[in-house]
Amino acid sequence: MRYAVLGTGSVGRTISAKLASLGHDVVVGTRDTQSTLARTGTGSAGQPFSAWLRDHPAVDLAAFAEAAGRADAVVNASSGATSLDVLAAAGAENLAGKILIDVANPLDFSAGTMPPPLNPVNTDSLAEQIQRAYPAAKVVKTLNTMNAAIMVDPARLPGPHSVFVSGDDAAAKQAVTQLLISFGWPPPSIIDLGDITTARGTEMMLPVWLGLFGALGHADFNFHIAGARRPS
Amino acid sequence: MRYAVLGTGSVGRTISAKLASLGHDVVVGTRDTQSTLARTGTGSAGQPFSAWLRDHPAVDLAAFAEAAGRADAVVNASSGATSLDVLAAAGAENLAGKILIDVANPLDFSAGTMPPPLNPVNTDSLAEQIQRAYPAAKVVKTLNTMNAAIMVDPARLPGPHSVFVSGDDAAAKQAVTQLLISFGWPPPSIIDLGDITTARGTEMMLPVWLGLFGALGHADFNFHIAGARRPS
Repeated sequence: MRYAVLGTGSVGRTISAKLASLGHDVVVGTRDTQSTLARTGTGSAGQPFSAWLRDHPAVDLAAFAEAAGRADAVVNASSGATSLDVLAAAGAENLAGKILIDVANPLDFSAGTMPPPLNPVNTDSLAEQIQRAYPAAKVVKTLNTMNAAIMVDPARLPGPHSVFVSGDDAAAKQAVTQLLISFGWPPPSIIDLGDITTARGTEMMLPVWLGLFGALGHADFNFHIAGARRPS
Repeated sequence: MRYAVLGTGSVGRTISAKLASLGHDVVVGTRDTQSTLARTGTGSAGQPFSAWLRDHPAVDLAAFAEAAGRADAVVNASSGATSLDVLAAAGAENLAGKILIDVANPLDFSAGTMPPPLNPVNTDSLAEQIQRAYPAAKVVKTLNTMNAAIMVDPARLPGPHSVFVSGDDAAAKQAVTQLLISFGWPPPSIIDLGDITTARGTEMMLPVWLGLFGALGHADFNFHIAGARRPS
């Protein structure tokens, strides 16, 4: 499969590296390739993007529209507050008919309050906004309830834990479920919540995730649904 | 201890029965005892309140203010949309200085949409509203992220799972933690998230709880935080 991963932060890098390690064709999408390659700051991702790209020679870099246009499936790994702009730059014609895996959370840092509130929230979600804006894309919300390292390496945590899937297209959810299994997720850990409106629920887990991050002092945890499978 | 449990629904009944079984003095608070005892409908709680009360002779019934006034600690087991009214009827003077265990969720059924949205949400929580309205009470938010049967019998689910505690008063949280342990919660399962603002996070777990209830077809599940305790 040819994947476009929109976003050059730690989530985009982690997912891109995993996809490439599984033999997929991966192109990272960014707004302007020259300025992305010219950045020298390391941010939270640990190294400048150009250095990361040198360490991952199988991964390509392109502008959002070119990246999405070349791909069979697109991963939205941009920060949630920018996602709609990023997808607009990618272009509806480059998203139509494709699976669009949305792993972003609409944390609103503009208010300056910590923890940041969500926007949208409660009666809407980022995933629904994206599906409404790109009705020809097959949006699947998943992986947004955990740290990037866990997304692609669930075995790093002891015991079972869960990943949620929301979306309107059953075949797209099935394909994403297969991708999650290839990432190392045991099938019983993958919970299909239903249609795209159920993404409200998983996006609204972010505040307690942030609370746990503060209380535990680390991000190496994940939600597990105990009792999800009844004894038969 | 003398407990007042405000609310006659399944959550109030379940917690009252557990407290009484542990030897505590329990009085259930309601708006009007005569009309509560006159109700013949079973609702979701399975039997009319009068029949339940006959089956639990150690539990008393009183109006909100009398119930709270007689108690050392108060449990808010009213439905979230009514909680501020219920506590106003209980009276600030009957809550002052006491632990107020808030297990309610502010689900807003007035809009008629399913799943019901939360109100307040995101930048506020019911627990914070209660703490602001009754600054002399020691509000502790807990147990609001699971079905009533699990609150008082965590062993009914296989494997470890979690209960969260939020509040501004450390001694009150410690007392509630001891109560949770007496309910059967293993100490490592009890996660102190921090001050009362962290209740936003646990109240905002309700939408995914409702999504899981719909997807799984039952309520006998709970959240576990895998990896919360790092291997030492």
